[in-house]
Amino acid sequence: MRANLERFFNPRAIAIIGASQDLNTISGQPLKFLKSHGYKGKLYPVNPRYQEVAGVKCHPSLAEVPETPDLALILVNASRVADMLRQCGEKGVPYVIIFSSGFSEMGGQGVALQQELIAIAREHGIGVVGPNCQGMINVADSVFAGFGSVFNADYEPGPVSMVSQSGGFGFSVMNLSSKDGKLPFRQMVTTGNEIGVSTLDFIEYYIQDPKTEIIVGYIEGLKDARRLLEVGAKALAAKKPVLMWKVGNTEQGQQAARSHTANLGGAMALYKAAFRQAGIIQVEDIQDVVDYGRAFRCGRLPAGNRLAIITVSGGAGILMTDECIGRGMQVPQLTPQTIEKLRGFVPNYGSLLNPVDVTAAIFNNTDLINRTLQAIVDDPNVDCVAMINASLQGELAVSIATQIVAVARKTDKPIFLAWSARDEVAREAYAMLDEARLPHYKSPVRCARALAALSWYAEALRRNEVYRSEKPPALSSAATRRALAGKRGDVSEHAAKRILAEYGIPATREELARGVKEAVAIARRVGYPVALKVQSADIPHKTEARAVRLGVASDEELAAAYDEVLANARAYKNDAKIEGVLVQQMVSGGTEVILGVTNDPLFGPAVMFGLGGIFAEALKDVSFRLAPVTHSVAREMIAEIKGYPVLAGARGRPRADLEALADAIVKLSALAVDLGDEIAELDVNPLFVFPEGSGIMAADALVRPRAASARGAHDAAVG
Amino acid sequence: MRANLERFFNPRAIAIIGASQDLNTISGQPLKFLKSHGYKGKLYPVNPRYQEVAGVKCHPSLAEVPETPDLALILVNASRVADMLRQCGEKGVPYVIIFSSGFSEMGGQGVALQQELIAIAREHGIGVVGPNCQGMINVADSVFAGFGSVFNADYEPGPVSMVSQSGGFGFSVMNLSSKDGKLPFRQMVTTGNEIGVSTLDFIEYYIQDPKTEIIVGYIEGLKDARRLLEVGAKALAAKKPVLMWKVGNTEQGQQAARSHTANLGGAMALYKAAFRQAGIIQVEDIQDVVDYGRAFRCGRLPAGNRLAIITVSGGAGILMTDECIGRGMQVPQLTPQTIEKLRGFVPNYGSLLNPVDVTAAIFNNTDLINRTLQAIVDDPNVDCVAMINASLQGELAVSIATQIVAVARKTDKPIFLAWSARDEVAREAYAMLDEARLPHYKSPVRCARALAALSWYAEALRRNEVYRSEKPPALSSAATRRALAGKRGDVSEHAAKRILAEYGIPATREELARGVKEAVAIARRVGYPVALKVQSADIPHKTEARAVRLGVASDEELAAAYDEVLANARAYKNDAKIEGVLVQQMVSGGTEVILGVTNDPLFGPAVMFGLGGIFAEALKDVSFRLAPVTHSVAREMIAEIKGYPVLAGARGRPRADLEALADAIVKLSALAVDLGDEIAELDVNPLFVFPEGSGIMAADALVRPRAASARGAHDAAVG
Repeated sequence: MRANLERFFNPRAIAIIGASQDLNTISGQPLKFLKSHGYKGKLYPVNPRYQEVAGVKCHPSLAEVPETPDLALILVNASRVADMLRQCGEKGVPYVIIFSSGFSEMGGQGVALQQELIAIAREHGIGVVGPNCQGMINVADSVFAGFGSVFNADYEPGPVSMVSQSGGFGFSVMNLSSKDGKLPFRQMVTTGNEIGVSTLDFIEYYIQDPKTEIIVGYIEGLKDARRLLEVGAKALAAKKPVLMWKVGNTEQGQQAARSHTANLGGAMALYKAAFRQAGIIQVEDIQDVVDYGRAFRCGRLPAGNRLAIITVSGGAGILMTDECIGRGMQVPQLTPQTIEKLRGFVPNYGSLLNPVDVTAAIFNNTDLINRTLQAIVDDPNVDCVAMINASLQGELAVSIATQIVAVARKTDKPIFLAWSARDEVAREAYAMLDEARLPHYKSPVRCARALAALSWYAEALRRNEVYRSEKPPALSSAATRRALAGKRGDVSEHAAKRILAEYGIPATREELARGVKEAVAIARRVGYPVALKVQSADIPHKTEARAVRLGVASDEELAAAYDEVLANARAYKNDAKIEGVLVQQMVSGGTEVILGVTNDPLFGPAVMFGLGGIFAEALKDVSFRLAPVTHSVAREMIAEIKGYPVLAGARGRPRADLEALADAIVKLSALAVDLGDEIAELDVNPLFVFPEGSGIMAADALVRPRAASARGAHDAAVG
Repeated sequence: MRANLERFFNPRAIAIIGASQDLNTISGQPLKFLKSHGYKGKLYPVNPRYQEVAGVKCHPSLAEVPETPDLALILVNASRVADMLRQCGEKGVPYVIIFSSGFSEMGGQGVALQQELIAIAREHGIGVVGPNCQGMINVADSVFAGFGSVFNADYEPGPVSMVSQSGGFGFSVMNLSSKDGKLPFRQMVTTGNEIGVSTLDFIEYYIQDPKTEIIVGYIEGLKDARRLLEVGAKALAAKKPVLMWKVGNTEQGQQAARSHTANLGGAMALYKAAFRQAGIIQVEDIQDVVDYGRAFRCGRLPAGNRLAIITVSGGAGILMTDECIGRGMQVPQLTPQTIEKLRGFVPNYGSLLNPVDVTAAIFNNTDLINRTLQAIVDDPNVDCVAMINASLQGELAVSIATQIVAVARKTDKPIFLAWSARDEVAREAYAMLDEARLPHYKSPVRCARALAALSWYAEALRRNEVYRSEKPPALSSAATRRALAGKRGDVSEHAAKRILAEYGIPATREELARGVKEAVAIARRVGYPVALKVQSADIPHKTEARAVRLGVASDEELAAAYDEVLANARAYKNDAKIEGVLVQQMVSGGTEVILGVTNDPLFGPAVMFGLGGIFAEALKDVSFRLAPVTHSVAREMIAEIKGYPVLAGARGRPRADLEALADAIVKLSALAVDLGDEIAELDVNPLFVFPEGSGIMAADALVRPRAASARGAHDAAVG
């Protein structure tokens, strides 16, 4: 199905089931627009009520259409869609767009109707797009199969192909981008409830489509979200940037999660993680689509993230510096050689630092731009250049554009322009830039955002090379899998840490005691001082139950404390099934962090990292990645939290053992994959990270098996 | 000077000193543009080399000009500016714009030249604008006194007045906003190095100007930053929104700061605090100026922050919900009555929740919009409405706009439109909305941002009413002021906490011991366990010096510990002047926070609040306000940090005593004002906040007097 979407976008014949003679209604518009845009294939309106529609012969049923169309459009009422889809199946129609609403988005009976459609599509192997969508436009081949205001316009074909789960909004994006934004589109499809061909199917098709250069997606949610990694990798390999716009950030938590990790890992956190891992560029407004799209059309990629800024306005230079640094670029010093060259012609009240301020003197001497740009393009410290021309216009603009284009022809470094002159007064200059594929923006802020997106993508390509050279370890423990399978209660601390140890993550020295004497013997082996912790799956919050005692220093103290914690546990929960008392090494020094696993229904296993204590949760300063991860990905996870300086050695603290921490994340991610079918959530909280070279140690852990999680969700639902 | 800027913007005669016959050069353009735009007053070019310039009689010197112009433009080389300015003074010219560059922005000799200008301006009482600026445009009276491309265009006069420290960039903003953005300007001035009339002077003038409705400022930095509060209050009283764009976020720290507070309180943190306190709306791009400006032109303010969204596209509805909630608005449930009304006509596959999704059915029945909008406007749970019309265009657009305008006429609630049709295909509909002052935006994201800015401003007006009903306490301690005056060393913990106590902020029970016996006596009074801390201004980092011992439980333990901490202190710094050993109550329970004071050269005293530990610094999760603050402002400071849930009772923790904490912030801010001349920095770190009703307690504190700070900066400079 995925490989063949060619026939979907360029069908030789189209049946329009439920076509209306009122060409302004939803069911009338597709035929109208297919005709008015000069569709070259055959059109078969199907409607028992008409002989013809808009001058085209109409058939009473699909069965009577004299050939098998490549595509059918279904425009009838929801209650009749299943019947029509079945007829498509019987006729052998490979692709069907269902426009009709009234399915899962309505809830209740609509959900059942949609299930029926899925079954029919599967039975007949139909590639269904929709339902509840607005159709498709293939600009390049003049196939306008849908409805809505934007179908009224003609479009220039271009290199951008888009897929949108939202109909009306998706077409608005296409319309504004290709018209006002001058970013021409090739193909555009809306997928609505997406019961058949999915957003990622279309993106995979676009990756293979030789004439698509830039891919845009607008999603509310993916049913096959984990495929983002695989599809993203293919896009990176094909060097086709994918811009993705995901909405739905303010969602409520969907299920009763027990662990920190699951609480923090809302869908948006996992989407962001997947986008980052897959080198997918996130966009957040129509303007981003246009701005980034124009950036990627330049066909150049910076070799690094070092930017030089040339400006005729000090203020705008500051602004752009702020924006670019805030988005991960560097604005470094130029080489002494470059500064020496610039000193020859930049006015002495200008600036030779980066940004280079050539001042309003440009009005009196346009040659300044040329020489400055050339000197800076030649600087080995510079990977890309942004030039701020304020509102330069008319003759001056043409003269400057000429010089910029001349310099740009001799370099591969990206050159971006922040140029605020209105189109009307700089038409010729802008046309020259467009011709040379030099991206230009009305505002320095937008220019900076677009350039930073290009730079981020270039870095993603470089990162991807590193990822491909690494291999995450494949750890496996069949015994652990068996032990966890079907377990309906949470795994308590001691057992959870033994699982971690199975996968190479060291934990505190500890043993479970069933009596005071055994406890004393263990304490001597472990070494005083020790901690005592009552172990019971029925008492997950041990501290709250006062079933924990820290810093026990001697045999005598232990004997007293042992009885006390047990008594407290029983007082807290009379019928608790107590496994024993854990006698544990006391840990001191080091920084507390939290690691975790969440096993998302859409994304599968993912790992989390954050600083320990209540701060991870209150400040949500954590990083996620889909499992498994390699060491370089683990290092990124560690470095990207805001609290990173705490580990890297802020305020005179020793630098933490970041390599050991990264290794623990890698191993935990391998565990997450190996136990993907058995566990729902896992917290290592806290994990102590000791100073550099001194390793890490898990001090507490919790594992929630899948079966326990399902029960928890059920409890929450009925409670 | 400030009151009289009327004559600056509308001068009866203008002298142009250094006017060039080459009308395309910088010194040629002002005369050209004044003439071409039909300036109605007298023009006096001054240049000894010419008899006439552009057909206007030219005078060899200002002295020979036959009258005293209201305004002189100085366009000569930097080295000759002082002489020309002096001549202006002698002639009695009240306002001068100095366009020339080559002053403080160049450093070195330029700084001295600028100092000379300041002295001359002061001596003669000249209102100087510039130097290093691009002049002024008074659209309303056709005074185009400056240079640059944007002076080529004609402008419709409008309600927006702007002041910009950046020349080229400022005029770009005006040009794009008034032309492409259809947000017409009234007056625009650039202030460059701002040695005379300042940004805030112009804003004060605009507040008084009856025809200015919306004020825009673009700043790199203010020399009179503290005045923001006073000017902001005047703008709020006049109900004139001030949009402020501040650049320069990535600045490096300027001086060696000792305290957390001073480290965290970079200029941007204080600007943001001042903007918030003053009800000034922060903008971050040209598009914001346009979008927010159009929002404020609607002339309506929501009574609260509750938004209802009507959409024809589910996706866009989700998007707008996300954006608005992320910006502090609410998207609440509609009343059952409203839902009942909607059920009558919204299709059953639409949604009656908020956002209300009327679906593409709108294409078949435009009346739907009218009825839906009316029902929602009438809902008492709704303060404002946003309507998302995707790309509706042509006839349909006109019909829908007609209905929207009809409903809008009968309500005061703001109604905003996210409407993505391009101008060309919805011209008539958009004109109707413009006529009715209903703001419309091409993207739901921009619509949401603009509406949220309007809502924020309405809330600022409401907050301001509360502020005005409160009075910060005026605390005063002449003894403390005297003790601190001229003190050249840091104030150590014990003395610092006594200062806090003077201003009503409780600290740990403690006394300074000069010997072991005294220490034991104190410990018995304070109550065991106690902490011992060596006090010495020469040992600011007591813990690092191991000059601290916690949890000392008995007389014997104290005797040993006393000797030990003293020995450690001496080992750490042999010549340290030791004041004694502090015997201090041990504090437990409660949450550690940090309070602080920073005394900024531009902003004056400000207070800071954040969570304690290294997290405030690593995560920069702190809030600032200029001192003094009232209780409601202190409550805002507490609630706005991301870690607020930690104090408010997250994860089953008890809620902290937030009222006692707010009271401490208020008192600390009064201290900051009272000791404004004496202290540079102050940290209370940690302050313990106990559970609700149990108060707060300062456990450590540091005061850095001004004289010590100056020395510290000197040390850093020479070190």
